[in-house]
Amino acid sequence: MSVRPAKFVANYQSFAEVGGPAHGAARVAALRAELASRGLAGFVVPRADEHQNEYVPPGAERLMWLTGFSGSAGLAIVLADKAALFVDGRYTLQAPAQIDGSAFAVKHVVSEPPSAWIEANLGAGGRLGYDPWLHTPESVERLAKACRAAGGELIAVETNPIDAIWTDRPGPPLAPIHAHPERLAGERASAKLKRVGEALKGADGLLVSDAHSVAWLFNIRGGDVAHTPLPLAFAYAPREGRPTLFVDAGKLTQAVGARLGRFADIAPPEALVPFVAARGAAGARIVFDAATAPARLTQALEAAGGKAIVKADPIARMKAVKNAVELAGTRAAHIRDGAALSRFLAWFDSEAPGGKLTEIDAAAALETFRRETGALKDVSFPTIAAAGPHAAIAHYRVSEASNLEIGRGVFLIDSGAQYEDGTTDVTRTIGVGRPTAELRDRFTRVLKGHIAIARAIFPRGTTGGQLDALAREALWRGGLDFDHGTGHGVGVYLSVHEGPQRLSKTDSTALEPGMILSNEPGYYAAGRFGIRIENLVVVREVEVSGADRPTLGFETIAFAPIDRRLVEKKLMSRDEVAWLDAYHAETRAKLSPLVDPATRKWLRAATRRIA
Amino acid sequence: MSVRPAKFVANYQSFAEVGGPAHGAARVAALRAELASRGLAGFVVPRADEHQNEYVPPGAERLMWLTGFSGSAGLAIVLADKAALFVDGRYTLQAPAQIDGSAFAVKHVVSEPPSAWIEANLGAGGRLGYDPWLHTPESVERLAKACRAAGGELIAVETNPIDAIWTDRPGPPLAPIHAHPERLAGERASAKLKRVGEALKGADGLLVSDAHSVAWLFNIRGGDVAHTPLPLAFAYAPREGRPTLFVDAGKLTQAVGARLGRFADIAPPEALVPFVAARGAAGARIVFDAATAPARLTQALEAAGGKAIVKADPIARMKAVKNAVELAGTRAAHIRDGAALSRFLAWFDSEAPGGKLTEIDAAAALETFRRETGALKDVSFPTIAAAGPHAAIAHYRVSEASNLEIGRGVFLIDSGAQYEDGTTDVTRTIGVGRPTAELRDRFTRVLKGHIAIARAIFPRGTTGGQLDALAREALWRGGLDFDHGTGHGVGVYLSVHEGPQRLSKTDSTALEPGMILSNEPGYYAAGRFGIRIENLVVVREVEVSGADRPTLGFETIAFAPIDRRLVEKKLMSRDEVAWLDAYHAETRAKLSPLVDPATRKWLRAATRRIA
Repeated sequence: MSVRPAKFVANYQSFAEVGGPAHGAARVAALRAELASRGLAGFVVPRADEHQNEYVPPGAERLMWLTGFSGSAGLAIVLADKAALFVDGRYTLQAPAQIDGSAFAVKHVVSEPPSAWIEANLGAGGRLGYDPWLHTPESVERLAKACRAAGGELIAVETNPIDAIWTDRPGPPLAPIHAHPERLAGERASAKLKRVGEALKGADGLLVSDAHSVAWLFNIRGGDVAHTPLPLAFAYAPREGRPTLFVDAGKLTQAVGARLGRFADIAPPEALVPFVAARGAAGARIVFDAATAPARLTQALEAAGGKAIVKADPIARMKAVKNAVELAGTRAAHIRDGAALSRFLAWFDSEAPGGKLTEIDAAAALETFRRETGALKDVSFPTIAAAGPHAAIAHYRVSEASNLEIGRGVFLIDSGAQYEDGTTDVTRTIGVGRPTAELRDRFTRVLKGHIAIARAIFPRGTTGGQLDALAREALWRGGLDFDHGTGHGVGVYLSVHEGPQRLSKTDSTALEPGMILSNEPGYYAAGRFGIRIENLVVVREVEVSGADRPTLGFETIAFAPIDRRLVEKKLMSRDEVAWLDAYHAETRAKLSPLVDPATRKWLRAATRRIA
Repeated sequence: MSVRPAKFVANYQSFAEVGGPAHGAARVAALRAELASRGLAGFVVPRADEHQNEYVPPGAERLMWLTGFSGSAGLAIVLADKAALFVDGRYTLQAPAQIDGSAFAVKHVVSEPPSAWIEANLGAGGRLGYDPWLHTPESVERLAKACRAAGGELIAVETNPIDAIWTDRPGPPLAPIHAHPERLAGERASAKLKRVGEALKGADGLLVSDAHSVAWLFNIRGGDVAHTPLPLAFAYAPREGRPTLFVDAGKLTQAVGARLGRFADIAPPEALVPFVAARGAAGARIVFDAATAPARLTQALEAAGGKAIVKADPIARMKAVKNAVELAGTRAAHIRDGAALSRFLAWFDSEAPGGKLTEIDAAAALETFRRETGALKDVSFPTIAAAGPHAAIAHYRVSEASNLEIGRGVFLIDSGAQYEDGTTDVTRTIGVGRPTAELRDRFTRVLKGHIAIARAIFPRGTTGGQLDALAREALWRGGLDFDHGTGHGVGVYLSVHEGPQRLSKTDSTALEPGMILSNEPGYYAAGRFGIRIENLVVVREVEVSGADRPTLGFETIAFAPIDRRLVEKKLMSRDEVAWLDAYHAETRAKLSPLVDPATRKWLRAATRRIA
C-alpha cells in the first residue's frame, strides 16, 4: 500500500514529560515565606483558571508549578507545617509519582476531602487564604465552613501569592479572536442575546463566566487555550439592551471589533469588577453560573448591595441544542474526519503487524492524516494512543517515557479534531494479530452496548440516566462493567466535553432533539487490555407508527469501520447484526469517494457484511 | 367446572362509596368558628396520622371528614375566606367529584404547591395553625418558610381543632399485639436492637417513629390499621441498653407484655413527650426518621436542649434486606397464594364469557379462594378489579357505584394477601373473548419488559433507577410508555409498600441480596383498556462464569399463569420465549399439587409452551 505520507508530525500534541517532583520542596518553602509575610496560615491552590476551564492557559497552571502534578483536576492546600494534594480516582497512581512526597501528602478527594483535612489541620485562629478568582461561590462556602469548624477563617487574597513567587509565570494569552460566521453558527448573536434575555425572567442580567458560553453567545472563537477554540473572556448580558464583552483590545482586529461593536459594548478585563460593583450599587439581581462563576464577582456584586442568583447557566442548554446549520456542519466535519481516520486505520493494518510502530507513531500519523484534509484547526484533545495494557487506562496519555511498541493484542485510539464546522471525538479498538476468544467476547459485548444506544428509541423527557444501562446490559450479563459514563455532550467547534446532556447513571437532564453526545461504552482488563467503541450521535425525533407519545432516538454521525475481526457473531442478535452491516454500508458509501485507492480497497474489506 | 364455592364474600374490603361532598360546607364553617376562637387565621389538614402511615386509623381520617376527599394522599388548608385541597396527579379527577366545590378549590400539588398558595393568600400577620403530630420536621420547615414569605407565622396547636368539632370521632385503635415468633422473623429482637445500636455511631439513640420499623424491631404485629398488621406505637432504641416501647397497655396480653418486658421497658403513649424532653434536658443527640418523625417530638427534644439528627431511618435498610427465614416464609406464602389465584383464574375463565360477572364478584371470589387456604390474615391492599376502561386507571378502586359487568376485552386484577409468613402482591391481565391485534401487541411489549427485569443480571451497587429502563425498552420502541414506577419494595407480613428499594427512574438505592420488590410494568390506553403484569422478585447473588465483579439478579417468587392468549410470539426473542415457558413449567409443577382437579386441568392448558 502506498498510503504513507513522507513524514508524520504531531503539531497539536506534545509527548514530552510534564510535571515532576523536582521543584516541589523549594517552591513550597518559597510559598510559605510569602504566606508568612501576609499573615496567612495557609493557602488553597486549585487546578483552575478564572473560568473553571478544562484546558487552562500556561499562566494558570499554578498547581503543576507548585506541586509537579499535571492532572486535569486537583487541589493543594499548603499550611506552615504540612501540605496535601487532593486528587480523584483517575490520578491516585499518577499524583504520587509526579510530586515530592516529602513536601505533599496525596489524598483521595472523596475519602479524605479537603474540608475534613482543613477541619483537622488548620487550627484555631488559622487564616486560610484563597484566590476568589479561582473558586466558585459554592466552593468558597464549603471551604469557609471547614475553616469555621476548625475555629479559623477563610480569607480572600487580593493578589495570588503563587504569582508573587513564580517569577517567570507566563502572562495571559492574547490569541486573536475571529468571528464565527453565521454560515457556521446558524443564528445571529443578536437573536441569541434576545433568547438569553427572555430566559432571565425576574433577573436584570446574566454574568457569563463560562468562556464557552461567551464564544457561543457572541459567535466568536479564539485560541487562548489548547484544543478548544476559546477566547478567554467574561461578558454581561442584560435582560434588555446592549451586552458588554470584557476582553483585551489586543485580541480584537479592527474588523472583528467593529463587527462586535455593532451590538455590544467592549470593555477591558480590568473594568469587570467595577462594572459588577456599579450594578450592585444600583440594586441589580444578576444570574451567575454555579459551575464557573468566580466568587470574586458574586462578592463584588453583593458587597455593593446587589443580589447574586447562582444557578445553572441558562446558555448551557441553549448551546447544547444545536440548530440545523450546526448539525449540518458537524455531519460534514465527521465525514471528512472519518475519511482521515479510515486512511489511518488502513495504514495501521498494513504497518502494525511489522511490530515496529509505537504509540507516538500512531498518534502522529493520525494527526497527519487529519491535517492533510486541509481543514484541521487542532485536535479536540490529546490523542489517547494505547497499546495492550495501556488501553486499560481509560485516560492514558502517551509520553516519550511511556511510549510502547504496538504488539499483538489490542490497540485503542481515542481522538478527535477541531474543524471550523464541527468537533469530533471517536474511538476505535483494533485487533493486532489473531484475537483471543476472551477479547472477541468482550469486544462484542461492548459493541452490543454501543448498538443498544445507537438504536435506542425513547419518549421525549427521557434522561441520559435512564438510557445508560442499555450500554451495559450485555456486559452485566457476563458479570462485567466499565467505570465511566457512557457518553458526554459535545460542542460545535467548541469543547469536546460540554453539558448539561450526558449518558451516565446519575444524569437527570432530559435529552432534546439537536443535542450531540458521545456513545462510548468500554471494557477494561487492568494490566492486560482495554476496549472502547465511540461514535458521536445526535438526538433526533423519530416517527413511530402507532406511537402514543413524541418519540426520540439517535442518529450516528461518525463513520469509520468497527473491527469486524473482533466481532463474535453468535453473541449478536439479528437486529444487532443488521445495524452493524447497515452502519458499515453507510460508512463505505460516505467515505469511499474521499479516500485514496488503497484505503478504498481496505475500506471495502473492512465494511463487508458480518458472515 | 366445579371450582365455584357456595358463596363469595369479601371480608377485608368494602365496596361502599366513601367520602363525598355532603358535609364539606358545614364542617368548614364549624372549623372556621373554632379557628376564630383560637385566634388562628387558618389551619393545615394533611392526610396523615402520627406515623405518616399509608393506611391510617379511622380517627385520623380528618381530611376525608372535613372535605369528603378519600384519596390516600392530600392536604387541605382552610383560611377564613377561602380553602384549598392539594392532591397529586392520581387524584385530579377524583378530588373534584368528592368535594363541595363551593367550599374548596382543588389544586395540583406540583403545579400549585401549598407553599405558593400560602404565600399568596395567608396575608401579613396571619397565624396559620398546624398539628405538629401530623407533620415531619421538613414539612414544618417548608410551611414555616411560606408563612414567613407571606409576612405571617406558622403556629403549632396543642390540640387539633378538627378533633374539637368532630364530635363522633373514633378513638385510637386498640387491636391486640401479637408476637411475631422467631420461626417467622428469623432474628431475635435483641439481635436487631444490637444492630441498630451499632448503626447509630455518634448518636445516643433512635426515636423509632415508623410503625413498620417498630413492628420489625420488636418482632411484634398488630391490627390497628387496615391491610397491614401494624401496631401503632413509637419506640426509643438507645445506642446501648434497654429500649422503650410506647404503647397502650390495653393492647398487650400478659404473655406478650411479659415477653417484651424481658428486654424492653413498656411505657404508655402519653409518657413519650416527657421522655423525649428528659433526654433533651440531658443533652442527648437523637436520630429521627426524616420520612415519619412527628415534628412534635423533634421540637420537644430541641426545646429541652437536645439535638435532633433528622435523616433516613437506619432500620429501613435492615428491614428491607430479608433473612433466610423471612425469604423461605415469603416463598411459601407465594406458592399458597399462587394456588388460590390459579383457582380464581380457572373459575374466571369458565364464568367470564357468560358476561354476568362484575368487578365486585371477581374481587369477592378471589378473596374467598385466598381465605379457603386457611391462612389468610387480610388482603394486603384493596383489590383492584378493573374491567375494560377501568383497567386504564392505575389505582382504580371498585365501588358499588362504579362496578362494571366484565365484557369482552381485558380484565385486570391487582391484589395481594397478608399471611403470617409473607405478604404478596400480584397482577394478572386476562383477555376476555378474542383479543385484538393491538391488545396482543401491547400485552407482549409489557411482558417483554417484565421478562427483562426478571432476567436482569447486574453488578452489585446497581440501583433500581438504572434498571427501570429495561422494563420500558420494548414499549419505547413502539412509541409507548407507562407513567408509574416499575416496582416497589415489599415487606414480610408487613407493608406491601416499603422502602428504600424501588425500581423507578429516580431511584438511587443500591439493590442488595434479600430485598423483595415488585416487577410490574404496564400499559394504559385511557378510556379503552389497561395492562399490568406483576410478580414479586427477590434480589439474589448470581454466579456468572468469567465474571469480574460480584453479580446480582432476581428470583421470581410469584407463580400464576400469564395469559398465553395475549402473547404475540413473533415479537418475542428466543430468550424471552424460553423464560416464559420455563416460568410456566415451574408454575405448573409448584401449584398442581395444591389445587382441585378442575383447576389442575386448566393449569395444564394455561401453562403450555408458547407455540
